[in-house]
Amino acid sequence: MEGTGSVGVVETNYFTFARPPHEMVLESGERLGPITLAYETYGRLDQNRSNAILVLHALSGDAHAAGVHRGDKGAGWWDAMIGPGRALDTDRYFVICSNVLGGCRGSTGPSSKNPDTGEPYGLDFPIISIKDMVEAQRHLIDHLGIETLLSVIGGSSGGMQALQWMASYPERIRSAIPIATTLRHSPQQIALSEVGRQAIMSDPDWKSGSYHLHAPPARGLAIARMVGHITYMSDTSMKGKFGRRLRGARKPAKFSPEFEVEGYLEYRGSNFVKRFDANSYLYITKAMDHFDAAGPGDGAKVFLGIKAKVLVLAFKSDWLYPPYQSQEIVEACMSAGVDVTYCEIQSDYGHDAFLLEIEEESDLVRNFLDKVFNANEAVTERPRRRRAHRLRGGEGTPA
Amino acid sequence: MEGTGSVGVVETNYFTFARPPHEMVLESGERLGPITLAYETYGRLDQNRSNAILVLHALSGDAHAAGVHRGDKGAGWWDAMIGPGRALDTDRYFVICSNVLGGCRGSTGPSSKNPDTGEPYGLDFPIISIKDMVEAQRHLIDHLGIETLLSVIGGSSGGMQALQWMASYPERIRSAIPIATTLRHSPQQIALSEVGRQAIMSDPDWKSGSYHLHAPPARGLAIARMVGHITYMSDTSMKGKFGRRLRGARKPAKFSPEFEVEGYLEYRGSNFVKRFDANSYLYITKAMDHFDAAGPGDGAKVFLGIKAKVLVLAFKSDWLYPPYQSQEIVEACMSAGVDVTYCEIQSDYGHDAFLLEIEEESDLVRNFLDKVFNANEAVTERPRRRRAHRLRGGEGTPA
Repeated sequence: MEGTGSVGVVETNYFTFARPPHEMVLESGERLGPITLAYETYGRLDQNRSNAILVLHALSGDAHAAGVHRGDKGAGWWDAMIGPGRALDTDRYFVICSNVLGGCRGSTGPSSKNPDTGEPYGLDFPIISIKDMVEAQRHLIDHLGIETLLSVIGGSSGGMQALQWMASYPERIRSAIPIATTLRHSPQQIALSEVGRQAIMSDPDWKSGSYHLHAPPARGLAIARMVGHITYMSDTSMKGKFGRRLRGARKPAKFSPEFEVEGYLEYRGSNFVKRFDANSYLYITKAMDHFDAAGPGDGAKVFLGIKAKVLVLAFKSDWLYPPYQSQEIVEACMSAGVDVTYCEIQSDYGHDAFLLEIEEESDLVRNFLDKVFNANEAVTERPRRRRAHRLRGGEGTPA
Repeated sequence: MEGTGSVGVVETNYFTFARPPHEMVLESGERLGPITLAYETYGRLDQNRSNAILVLHALSGDAHAAGVHRGDKGAGWWDAMIGPGRALDTDRYFVICSNVLGGCRGSTGPSSKNPDTGEPYGLDFPIISIKDMVEAQRHLIDHLGIETLLSVIGGSSGGMQALQWMASYPERIRSAIPIATTLRHSPQQIALSEVGRQAIMSDPDWKSGSYHLHAPPARGLAIARMVGHITYMSDTSMKGKFGRRLRGARKPAKFSPEFEVEGYLEYRGSNFVKRFDANSYLYITKAMDHFDAAGPGDGAKVFLGIKAKVLVLAFKSDWLYPPYQSQEIVEACMSAGVDVTYCEIQSDYGHDAFLLEIEEESDLVRNFLDKVFNANEAVTERPRRRRAHRLRGGEGTPA
C-alpha cells in the first residue's frame, strides 16, 4: 500500500508491579506478585494522551506486534496492521501491545520464577482469567499515564480481552474492536482446548507441570499445536495450500508424514515448542474456556451504559469462532443500546483470517478508528457533546 | 416402529482363507496370509441367493452390527437399522457384516499373531487399503456362495468400501448405499487423522508399534479418540448435550475435567482403549487417507458402465464428511451415467447422524432397497429386461 511502512526496529519493555505486600488479587481470590508485563509501543502518545490504542494478542501471540527486533528477520505478528499509514497508523496513534499475564513471552506466567522457591511456578501458578489479564493491562495503562484508551483491539482470545475491557473498564475506552471472537466458548471450543491440554498432560515429560524448562513435554505441546492449526485454517484454505499432494517420491517409513499437510503440521508443531511454554498453554486455554463476558444471561446487562463505539469483525470461513458468535456479541451490544457495527469479511483463510485477510480488515479498522478519533477530538474541544449519528451497519456484509 | 424387532441372540463366525502358499496379494504388492475375517449374518439367504446385503462398518466398528451376544447387554452398532421389519429387513434380506481386514475385532490385523514369529504383527503388518478390505470381503462372499449382492451399504469409511465395491466389482452388486462419505479425504480430514496417529505414536508405550497388547499406548489412543468424537458431533449437538455445564460443585484439581463435555471426552477416550487396538487405528486411518475412489480425475471414469443403482446419503450438520463431498459422489455417478439418487438428511447430530438419525435414514434405505429388490425379482423372472425408470432425485431434500 502506498505510503505505508514498518515501524522499524523496536524493543520490548518490561513493567513490574504488584510487588509484595501489594500483590494483585486475582478473580479466583488468590494473590499474585510481583507481576511483570512485557510490552512494546509504537508511535507517540499525543499531548492530550488521547491517541493510545491497546492491541490484545491471541493465545500464542506476544508483545511483539509490529516492527523487527535488532538482529531478527521476522516482523511482529500483526505488522501488516501497525505502522506509518497502516490501519493502526503510528503517525497518528500510540500503539501498545503487552504479553498477557500467564504468558511465557516476557510476562509473568507459570514458567516464571516463583519468588518463594526460586524455581519456575509450574502448577503453583494460580489460575488466571481473561479478567485478570485485563486487570494487569490496566496497571500498565496507568503506568503509561493514559486515562482513556482510544481503542482496544484484538482477535480470538485478544477479542475476549477487548470484550472484558468493555465489561471491566467501560469508562476508560472510547471504542473496542473484538475480532473473530465470542462472548463465551461453546462446548465444541472447550472440547478442542481440552484435547490440547490432555495431549500436554499425557506426555510423561510434563511431570505434573514441574518439568525443567529445557526438557518440556515437547510431543504433547506439538500435538496441541497441530490440533490448533487445523482449527485455525479452513477446509478450503487447506485444499488451496496442500491439496492431497505427497511430500516426495521416496517411499517413507511406515506412518511417517507422507502428505504435505502432515509435514506442515509436524513442522508447525515442533517449531511451536521452541517458543511456547506448555504450562502457559494450559493456563491460557483454561482462561479462554472459563471466559463468559455476559455470565449466564444474554450479555445485554454487562454492556448496559457503555458509551464506547464497538466494531465487531468476523470471517465467513472461520469455523473455530464462527460468525454467529460475533453476531451474538452484536445482539448483546444492541440490546444494551451500545453503538455497534458488524462486518462479516469474506475470506477463505478460516480463523487465521484475522492475521492474514489484511486488506479489508485494514480498511474497516482504519475508517472506524478515524471516526472515533475525530469524535474524540471533538469531545476534547467541546466536552459532553453527544454524537449525532450511529455507526450501525453499512460498512460490510451484514449477517 | 410397529412390527419391527431385534434379530435376537447372534454369534460371530470366522472365515479363514489365503492360507500359505496362497496368500492374498495386497494393493501394495505385499502378500498376506492366512487371513481370518470375523463376520455375522442375520436373516436367511433365499433360494436364488439374490437377497444378500453386505453391511460395511466404519473406522471403529466391527462385525457385530445387530442383535445381542449371549450374556451381553448392548446391541450391535447398527441394530436400529437391521432386524425383522427394520430398514434392512431380516424377514426379507440376508444381511452380512464382517470386521475389516486390518481391524482388531476378530479379523486379521496388526494385533493378530504373525505366523512367522508367533508374536503380534505390530508394524510388520503390511500396509492395507480400502481396496484390500473389499477384496477380503469378496473372498467371504464367495465362501458364502453369493454371486451377486443385492446391496452394499455403509457410512464413513464403510461408505468408502461401498464406493470401492462399485469400482472393484460392479458386476457383483445390484446397488450401493454410500453414506456420509467421500470419494477421497480432503487435507483437513487427513490432518485430523494425522493428529490421532501422532498422539498414538507420541505415547512412549507405543514402543514403535511393538507394545504388549496388555500394555497399549492408552493415553495416546484415548486422545486420538477424543479428537474423533469432536469431529463426529456437531457444534449444535454438543450444545444440546453439554452446554457449558460443569460436572460438579466441588473444586476440581487444576486442569482436571471441569466441564461436562470434558468429562464425556475423557470417558469415551478411556473406554475406547478397552476395545480397540492402537496399531489398527494407524493402519485403518492410513487406508482411509490414501483412499481415492476416482484417482486424480473426477471419478466419472471409474464408475463408467456401472449398472448398480446408487443411493447417496449425507447429513446437513456433518462437518467431518460434509454434504458437498457426497454431492461429488453424485456428480461422478451422473457423469458416468450411473442411476443415482441423492438425499441430504436434516439432522443436528453431525457425522454421528448415520448411526443416530435412524427414522429418515430407514425410510430412504427401505424404499430404495424395495425398488432394487423388486427390480431384481423381475430380472430373475425375466432376464435382461431393462428397467424403465430412473431413481434420480425426488426422495429427499436435494442439495
